[in-house]
Amino acid sequence: MENGTIKRKIALTGDRPTGKMHLGHYVGSFKNRVKMQDDYDQFILVADVQALTDNADNPAKIRANILETTIDNIACGVDPHKNTFFIQSMVPEIADLTIYFLNLVTVSRLIRNPTVKDEVNQKGYGQNIPAGFMCYPVSQAADILCVKACVVPAGEDQLPMIEQTNEIVDKFNALYTATFPRVKAIVPRIAARLSGTDGKSKMGKSTGNAIFLADSSKVLAEKVMNMYTDPAHIHATDPGHIEGNVVFEYLDVFDNDPKGLGELKEKYKAGGVGDVVIKKRLIEVLENEIGPIRRNREELAQNSDQILKILKEGTERACNISAKTLRDVKTAMQINYF
Amino acid sequence: MENGTIKRKIALTGDRPTGKMHLGHYVGSFKNRVKMQDDYDQFILVADVQALTDNADNPAKIRANILETTIDNIACGVDPHKNTFFIQSMVPEIADLTIYFLNLVTVSRLIRNPTVKDEVNQKGYGQNIPAGFMCYPVSQAADILCVKACVVPAGEDQLPMIEQTNEIVDKFNALYTATFPRVKAIVPRIAARLSGTDGKSKMGKSTGNAIFLADSSKVLAEKVMNMYTDPAHIHATDPGHIEGNVVFEYLDVFDNDPKGLGELKEKYKAGGVGDVVIKKRLIEVLENEIGPIRRNREELAQNSDQILKILKEGTERACNISAKTLRDVKTAMQINYF
Repeated sequence: MENGTIKRKIALTGDRPTGKMHLGHYVGSFKNRVKMQDDYDQFILVADVQALTDNADNPAKIRANILETTIDNIACGVDPHKNTFFIQSMVPEIADLTIYFLNLVTVSRLIRNPTVKDEVNQKGYGQNIPAGFMCYPVSQAADILCVKACVVPAGEDQLPMIEQTNEIVDKFNALYTATFPRVKAIVPRIAARLSGTDGKSKMGKSTGNAIFLADSSKVLAEKVMNMYTDPAHIHATDPGHIEGNVVFEYLDVFDNDPKGLGELKEKYKAGGVGDVVIKKRLIEVLENEIGPIRRNREELAQNSDQILKILKEGTERACNISAKTLRDVKTAMQINYF
Repeated sequence: MENGTIKRKIALTGDRPTGKMHLGHYVGSFKNRVKMQDDYDQFILVADVQALTDNADNPAKIRANILETTIDNIACGVDPHKNTFFIQSMVPEIADLTIYFLNLVTVSRLIRNPTVKDEVNQKGYGQNIPAGFMCYPVSQAADILCVKACVVPAGEDQLPMIEQTNEIVDKFNALYTATFPRVKAIVPRIAARLSGTDGKSKMGKSTGNAIFLADSSKVLAEKVMNMYTDPAHIHATDPGHIEGNVVFEYLDVFDNDPKGLGELKEKYKAGGVGDVVIKKRLIEVLENEIGPIRRNREELAQNSDQILKILKEGTERACNISAKTLRDVKTAMQINYF
């Protein structure tokens, strides 16, 4: 995993195994992982414990998606030889570290966390926030620090979580012995958030507006044909709008021919290009991008033993590093008795 | 540890290693442990992780008291051959189980817990409650259930904690597969709470009103001579009050001659018995009870390697049982992947 004698910086990223991965994950995360995998010693967490914080009543869903999530990553080019895939629940040190970190954070600080606040509202928990859900910024700090990661790719909306991690780092280092480095968030420059096919909100696993990496050519084409464009653009001859038009948003992200795309946009705005034309172009563009991933997925799914082996070996590596971290932590806290 | 073929019920009890143990612990806990040790497979938790929830800034104090707490127990007759002493921080499964249990409890339920509420007020946390402190009823459920204890000796003020544990048991069993038995609290019949020597509040580790098991004869005698009696009883000839008189409260608990004590009380009430007389009687009674414990303590303190061995072996046993519990839990939750 190490590149000769040069020790690469450790980065941590991960996925909640709660459902199939979609184009939003592909552009927002997977492509960035592929970009980072040569420069960083990248750990990819399969966050089953975190997924359980709001799916405690449906562990079967989590179980089913452990393999799927890993397959999605690898199919997109996240190389298991360059990255360490590991399963959160199988690294008990993360729980251990979470418990110590919980003493360094106040309840009111957790409730104020903007990311948690937003998600509590989204999920409609009201007064019934599961304690585990409220504590997950602390678990997340433990995920990161257990493997001593110092770089975390994160969307803008995740920055408060990194801030919370660094508050814990500072508190721990001040109270005991300096043990952890501060963590740096890297906000990927690639398109941050992809809209859903309905144009109403961002693409979501369970919001019915996603194009999944596992979708067949037929399903992909159907979803594009039903995509939200410009409601005022009724006849091909009508002038059309580009802004808020999901087809053009996707073409901007995926089309490798910016000149051709620019010309198409001009024609569409002037009137004379039907929605079917732009949708067919998008189907072709997406099929070029997703087709190989789909074929990779199918092949990988045939070899689930191989995927399990990758997860097992990665988890072992994460456990070894985490065990050392916990020894350091307990020494710093003076609770290493024998 | 097992008595022939009869499997004893598992009981869990424990101490926070935050300071020297005193007479209140002796009558409230240790004597009860000695009574229970033949009938139960009793686990005695050295609760260092819990102690850290409100002592995160002073781990050295916790460390120093790990051995002391164990010595106090054994010196009082809690037999290491009949009981399993173990250190909380060295059983990582407790943290693991705590994390899963946190998903089964809401934040508002934790904040409403009467024991936590009282302690938050006592400690003057205001809005700055450490998250670990708020979560400790959940950790406590994990302590109990990790070793599959079904009996917990508890003071009246600890009953809400057992209720919380049983709510978690019910939720877990309903959501996944029935895995845990409900837990029964046993409220010891022995004197529940001993007043402090100042008569103002119950005896406390750090409230300056305790007689410690480690106190020398001289210190013991001094503390009794300064004890709160009856402020209206100025001359030996004055009639005295028994109620609220700490010397008589202690004599009621420790004096083995109820007839002689009854006569003394009558004389004291009538007038004609000085405080020095009753205090000298108490000194003798306490010295008879504590003297042997003090000598045991001194001897045990010489053999700290032996104490460490007891803790190490007990911790190994607790780890083995807990590892099995966690395997059962993960099977029930379907998160046993390989």
